[in-house]
Amino acid sequence: MTIATLTTALLVRFAEIVGEAHALTRAEDQAGYLREWRDLYVGRTPVVLRPGSTEEVSKILALANEHEIGIVPQAGNTGLVGGQIPAMRGDEIVLSVSRLNNVRSVDADGGTMIVEAGMTLSEAQAVAEKAGRLFPLSLASEGSAQIGGILATNAGGTAVLSYGNARSFCLGLEAVLADGRVWHGLRTLKKDNTGYDLRDLLIGSEGTLGVITAAALKMLPRPKEIATAIVAIESPEAALKLFRIAEETAGASLTAFEFWARRAMDFAVAHMPGTRDPLAIVHPWYALLEISSNDSGGRADAQLHALLMNASDAGLIRDGALAASMQQARDFWGLRESFSEAQKGAGGSIKHDISVPIARIPEFLERAAAVVEKVCPGARPVPFGHFGDGNLHYNVSQPEGMEKAQYLGLWGAMSDAIHTLVTSMDGSISAEHGIGQMKRDHLVRYKSPVEIEMMRAIKNAFDPKGILNPSKVLERRRPET
Amino acid sequence: MTIATLTTALLVRFAEIVGEAHALTRAEDQAGYLREWRDLYVGRTPVVLRPGSTEEVSKILALANEHEIGIVPQAGNTGLVGGQIPAMRGDEIVLSVSRLNNVRSVDADGGTMIVEAGMTLSEAQAVAEKAGRLFPLSLASEGSAQIGGILATNAGGTAVLSYGNARSFCLGLEAVLADGRVWHGLRTLKKDNTGYDLRDLLIGSEGTLGVITAAALKMLPRPKEIATAIVAIESPEAALKLFRIAEETAGASLTAFEFWARRAMDFAVAHMPGTRDPLAIVHPWYALLEISSNDSGGRADAQLHALLMNASDAGLIRDGALAASMQQARDFWGLRESFSEAQKGAGGSIKHDISVPIARIPEFLERAAAVVEKVCPGARPVPFGHFGDGNLHYNVSQPEGMEKAQYLGLWGAMSDAIHTLVTSMDGSISAEHGIGQMKRDHLVRYKSPVEIEMMRAIKNAFDPKGILNPSKVLERRRPET
Repeated sequence: MTIATLTTALLVRFAEIVGEAHALTRAEDQAGYLREWRDLYVGRTPVVLRPGSTEEVSKILALANEHEIGIVPQAGNTGLVGGQIPAMRGDEIVLSVSRLNNVRSVDADGGTMIVEAGMTLSEAQAVAEKAGRLFPLSLASEGSAQIGGILATNAGGTAVLSYGNARSFCLGLEAVLADGRVWHGLRTLKKDNTGYDLRDLLIGSEGTLGVITAAALKMLPRPKEIATAIVAIESPEAALKLFRIAEETAGASLTAFEFWARRAMDFAVAHMPGTRDPLAIVHPWYALLEISSNDSGGRADAQLHALLMNASDAGLIRDGALAASMQQARDFWGLRESFSEAQKGAGGSIKHDISVPIARIPEFLERAAAVVEKVCPGARPVPFGHFGDGNLHYNVSQPEGMEKAQYLGLWGAMSDAIHTLVTSMDGSISAEHGIGQMKRDHLVRYKSPVEIEMMRAIKNAFDPKGILNPSKVLERRRPET
Repeated sequence: MTIATLTTALLVRFAEIVGEAHALTRAEDQAGYLREWRDLYVGRTPVVLRPGSTEEVSKILALANEHEIGIVPQAGNTGLVGGQIPAMRGDEIVLSVSRLNNVRSVDADGGTMIVEAGMTLSEAQAVAEKAGRLFPLSLASEGSAQIGGILATNAGGTAVLSYGNARSFCLGLEAVLADGRVWHGLRTLKKDNTGYDLRDLLIGSEGTLGVITAAALKMLPRPKEIATAIVAIESPEAALKLFRIAEETAGASLTAFEFWARRAMDFAVAHMPGTRDPLAIVHPWYALLEISSNDSGGRADAQLHALLMNASDAGLIRDGALAASMQQARDFWGLRESFSEAQKGAGGSIKHDISVPIARIPEFLERAAAVVEKVCPGARPVPFGHFGDGNLHYNVSQPEGMEKAQYLGLWGAMSDAIHTLVTSMDGSISAEHGIGQMKRDHLVRYKSPVEIEMMRAIKNAFDPKGILNPSKVLERRRPET
């Protein structure tokens, strides 16, 4: 089956909805919407539409649905699995929500805010801060990532450990359905058991069930003090023990437990200007711990310090540095957040975003290294990530001296092998980043048929003509009639 | 449309699946399954089936689906909106999950457990405790309520404030769909973005989209110390201020903030043996605060004490009692948990389970009192509940001396008026208890048509023949073909 072609007459009607200035047809205007930041996915579109209101989004979808035109919703274009990029075929319209960036309301006392989908995560954090509150989601891309995309992908980041991912912070949604009807589900209530959880169905659906236009978000009290440390560890097993002690001691105050291999640090120090190793000598593994406290008076520092002393006495850490200032804490985080970018300096990188039960992380690292060596001898694993969530970005840099393009040609083989291992360990092949285009075919291989059928039944119920982000998450297919 | 009649031949086939001993047809065996504990709902069934495995549940549903026999899933039979009781018509089979009560696995270090749907909440708490962990959901009915029902209704309780409701604790599900297929969605991963959130769709769906047979649940570190206090307050406005200070001071350590009117205390002291007022003189309003800490050394007590001193200095509380022992803390909670039962001593009670934005609680209490007086002069509101979640059980006791049956005849009129008020204040007509039978007709009145249509589309996708818990949540209706 083919999605209908966008005729000139229809193009004019779409442009009339948003106004000429916001219907982009020239190549130079479209460029930024058609390519994702690592150049892994490139697409084409007859027009990029930039609606300025929910009503305009509604009219666009009603028209698209009537004429069976594919719509690719796009927010900040920071997605990592190509979900926001249209197909090269060029028959899908890109619908950018970036102009929907108002704050609709803030209830500082009640700890909730309602913002539109095009607001960046940084802006949302600032709104919360201005209200004396905290919006704790934190991503490296937060200056560009927008709330609509963050919710559509159920983004995670570095603060999930104690605070949770995007799903944990969303109380309600306003979204436009495939046929243009608007679901007014903005609710700021903490407790509401009146029907099916439509909100959580849309969150993480990657634009395939509806276009999120606004969200009611939860804000938390701001911690009074935050203590941060980087420690050196012998092994992943030691990291696991350290994590358990940290969790037991600090409970919900433990707001981050990140982890990485020596090689990640080497690449960062070598390729990212201004980045330095905070410890004196080389160690095989590292962790970054953060404790946040509602108390003033040095409690967070004292608690983290005591934790590290206990861990040291127990032989779990070899060395450590407790941030003595906010700048030093920022440097620690800057180092951690540089690892992905730093890998570029070492050539091609085959990336995985996986999770396994936390207790099995050491086992995974050992078995994955063997898998990598088998697929490509000399390839260099650079594991780093959110240890406390069981989520590692298991990125594999090419062997030194190998031709980059040749190495990247092994992506399919290596991913298959790693994903097979992860699935055999009851893990997830996409812990944070979603499915998009990248993992669509993997999904049918690693999910049960029953689950795929349930998803398809929902997709057919919400979008019978299959116009919302076709070919993302699930194969594009007309439902049986 | 009619659900098919259960013929004797079919009855025999159902009985064969579970074995004669677990296919209950005699009135005295069925009685406990057909009536809910407040006698508000009574039903009839040709047979109560008690399967002993997921496979048996699967066979039951496959057979029911083939012959279009209605199935009413039932767990602990503690639901408060009649969702677990079959219709008086008597053509629906009750499927009890109570025999599915195994612990499948416990990962103490990873903080997860997999248990079956028939396990009681108390048992689940005990499993966690034995593993040195905490399963924080806490309901008055926890000795009887079972995990399947708790998840099907997204139960809340007194520990939602910091810990969250049932949804927050469920990492994955095993469930049987309407046609008998089993969805193997048991996952213990914290982060997994591989497809639609089927888990959250089933949670809170009250048995209308599938029958939950097992769940992967999260366990938390056990707090080392818990401090509890009951305080006397001037007004709901003062309670709101106190709540904000408590939240600001204690953050996630504030694990409960309950609230009630004087009258709730009066009824409890009058009608519940062994219950006493912890304070010396009468006050108009009260709150119960709880702080939980990962630290030992008296930190929780010190923090709660400091909070109360600050609140007292600010004129927000008139008096207070900090529990000096675990027994005293248990007494405080016993008092709070007795309010619902205590109302029986005062005659008929018309009950509401509502939530409004926390900041509007004082306004709600004032306006609701006026509404009650208008519908039934002399009726006595007994508000109590989870102030910190915005959720109040706004229960209204009859005027003294009025005939109970006559008073209960006003239930519809009073509920309509209270629900209209709540909806006008952007609140929920069912904060915790769900929809079941009780609020099914209210749902269509208070939800947008778009939302009802979305729910129906999902229902039709999952259960095209409409056999799962017919007439619960949504009107029973065959989909348009």
